Amino acid sequence: MILTADWVLPISSQPLSKGAVMIKEGIIQSVGRRDSVLAKYPKQQVKDLGSVILMPGLVNLHTHLDYTVLRGLGDDLIFFPWLSNLVRKSRSLDYRELLLSAKLGALELLAGGVTTIADTTATGASLEAATELGLRGIIYQEVFGLDVNQLNYTLNKAQRNYENLKSQAGERLRVGLAPHATYSVGRDLFRRLDQLSQAEGIPLCTHVAETQEELDCLLAGRGPLATDYRRAVGWQDIFWKPPRQTPVKYLADLGVLSDRLLAVHLVHANQEEFEILAEAGVKVAYCPKSNAKLGSGIADLPAMLENNLLVGLGTDSAVSNNSLDLFSEMEFGLLVQRAEQQRAKAVTAQEMVELVTIGGARALGLAAEIGTLEPGKKADLTAVKIDNLANQPVYDPYSTLVYTASSRDVIMTMIDGEIVYQGGPEFGEQYLKEVRELKKKIETGE
Amino acid sequence: MILTADWVLPISSQPLSKGAVMIKEGIIQSVGRRDSVLAKYPKQQVKDLGSVILMPGLVNLHTHLDYTVLRGLGDDLIFFPWLSNLVRKSRSLDYRELLLSAKLGALELLAGGVTTIADTTATGASLEAATELGLRGIIYQEVFGLDVNQLNYTLNKAQRNYENLKSQAGERLRVGLAPHATYSVGRDLFRRLDQLSQAEGIPLCTHVAETQEELDCLLAGRGPLATDYRRAVGWQDIFWKPPRQTPVKYLADLGVLSDRLLAVHLVHANQEEFEILAEAGVKVAYCPKSNAKLGSGIADLPAMLENNLLVGLGTDSAVSNNSLDLFSEMEFGLLVQRAEQQRAKAVTAQEMVELVTIGGARALGLAAEIGTLEPGKKADLTAVKIDNLANQPVYDPYSTLVYTASSRDVIMTMIDGEIVYQGGPEFGEQYLKEVRELKKKIETGE
Repeated sequence: MILTADWVLPISSQPLSKGAVMIKEGIIQSVGRRDSVLAKYPKQQVKDLGSVILMPGLVNLHTHLDYTVLRGLGDDLIFFPWLSNLVRKSRSLDYRELLLSAKLGALELLAGGVTTIADTTATGASLEAATELGLRGIIYQEVFGLDVNQLNYTLNKAQRNYENLKSQAGERLRVGLAPHATYSVGRDLFRRLDQLSQAEGIPLCTHVAETQEELDCLLAGRGPLATDYRRAVGWQDIFWKPPRQTPVKYLADLGVLSDRLLAVHLVHANQEEFEILAEAGVKVAYCPKSNAKLGSGIADLPAMLENNLLVGLGTDSAVSNNSLDLFSEMEFGLLVQRAEQQRAKAVTAQEMVELVTIGGARALGLAAEIGTLEPGKKADLTAVKIDNLANQPVYDPYSTLVYTASSRDVIMTMIDGEIVYQGGPEFGEQYLKEVRELKKKIETGE
Repeated sequence: MILTADWVLPISSQPLSKGAVMIKEGIIQSVGRRDSVLAKYPKQQVKDLGSVILMPGLVNLHTHLDYTVLRGLGDDLIFFPWLSNLVRKSRSLDYRELLLSAKLGALELLAGGVTTIADTTATGASLEAATELGLRGIIYQEVFGLDVNQLNYTLNKAQRNYENLKSQAGERLRVGLAPHATYSVGRDLFRRLDQLSQAEGIPLCTHVAETQEELDCLLAGRGPLATDYRRAVGWQDIFWKPPRQTPVKYLADLGVLSDRLLAVHLVHANQEEFEILAEAGVKVAYCPKSNAKLGSGIADLPAMLENNLLVGLGTDSAVSNNSLDLFSEMEFGLLVQRAEQQRAKAVTAQEMVELVTIGGARALGLAAEIGTLEPGKKADLTAVKIDNLANQPVYDPYSTLVYTASSRDVIMTMIDGEIVYQGGPEFGEQYLKEVRELKKKIETGE
């Protein structure tokens, strides 16, 4: 099958006006100008998508699909009260409810052009949802634990959960481990998880340097994450000595920085730390809207890029964003840098589009398979319509995607050559009644 | 006619779940719970809009519709090179082309739920477009001029242009005068325009404290706006003495700060200046995305609100945004404050929705007519659908509007009780061919 479009964005090369992509058995065979692709494959069936930008499927490099149904709860809270609220609300949901919640998120992603995710889950619900709905990516089993006396128990449980997820994962999904954060995972546990990762080739993911509170906790054993948070999770009596180091340096000294690690946030990290991370090959998820909404701050994306870190873009969960919309995330992620740095070139639209395609693919070790439109790669595609008033005229498709396009303009999402979304209000409609009922239950209080 | 909806947002009072608005001859008669409104008017025709948020039509407090077709040109330029680029490109367009451009913008606004605008035009094209398409608001005739020898000529021309626009304006539009900026309008010209405004009750609008370059120019007669800009517009030989004051203090000393003035931007203004502006009754247009995109900085919205300034939200033009989407503007305008101030309560979703409704209405002196849903006000309404995956579930309609809704979710826009937009890809379609042709002309060079 040949798909033709007003614009084709290979990412690996210049945008093609009147382009085409030839696909066979879920693999891209050829990408080029419409005329030349049609001439090369004269007998192929041709589907013209018309006035769209056809591009690689988007990669959302940080999500917690389990929490989607909590979208908008705790809107005006800073990090710690927000976290307590999340812990309390999410504990009130049973697995069936979390699964519905994760499906709502997965459907929103597909409808918004996302084909690949890096998701962190405590329960496995997001894995079941992503498997059922056919998403690609890595699902990380979340691990918490500060108590050295519980070390073996926690490790064994993490390993069992990991094996369990692995046995259930769809063929497009890998399973990883996610030590939650520097303040919620003990030294030895973090090291042992890293050893396990190294021994078995398991990808890792952790939240790092997200908030000033995290720095206060690590540097001085002070602040809400050292006190209130521990009380809230029942850890008030556990002995924990603050490392008196910043999160990045602490992890560096633990020896757990490697190219197997995806570090999420890095809002409070500096040039020296970016160099340490780049040297170790650590991947980074930039989550600008979540960082803004929780009042955490602005991660220095231009510095990350200058240090050649492998960066992608993540929405984080619907509780801290509140949308899973990578178009809005690209726009915010660019504009907030220009606003803060007072430099119009702080980041360009093309760089933002690269973050959500090849950037995310590289960060997940999937760059050989996805992230650009090139022969031999998997046919994971997104088509974004541009014939609406708000997107016209189009001088530069990168600019259109970042500054004017909306997730609502996605008219088709394809994974492995299979159409998984093709517009229409009926998409996912069957779940909305249940979602509304669950919302009522949450609202009226547990 | 009675419109019913899952949510009605009067703004002046709490959101109503299962609400209704009764309209007669373009005027709101009643707003309340569905059951009580239906009981009060049992014989009225009822139209159920279903799963939508029904709210006042949005107010876009700063636009330059003339420039819409230049959307995305000059994307990575800071203020001065961007301005030069804009001047050059816009001068290459004739009136018929500017009118098409302005219509594209006006249609985008209607499709995005906007019913009222404050637009600045050099040519009057936006006035013709807004008149034809039925928008409400104020269209300001832009005035430039530093040369005291040209004072009377410039004033007479401004007055003629003003009278000319006034004679052509639709009944929903007022006409105002817009001295362009502190660095492009001379002292005497600014004073005389203010006197004219006072004598004839003409609203005024000006760009103030937008960039650091403006401060450099006023405080020290230095920087690109004092040198390159003047050369670019042929003013290099005009004598102009820098006031050695900040833009706000300069305007205060000129005596032109009054409740007739809408001040746009105020990125580089401080607490003392906000107090001066509030004392004078000056209105403010906050344009966060434009300020970000051009690398101008972040205006201190929380401080403006704390000083009780009358503030609304503006997109600025499609050349500096690039969209005219107030939903995206609300989200960015809130998140950028939280990111910078590292305070999750810096601004709330409800405050942002107030900015685009009653805030904008107050700033334009239209609060008695529009901006809330209350009996006696004009039936300017917007319906935003919420039954899509990305908006579900809805716990708080303010949160949904700011964080997850998109301009694409607007399914109906009404002005004076008349439906001016009701969805569908065919809306404005007849202009798109011409827009594409004009784009080609612009692209291939004048």
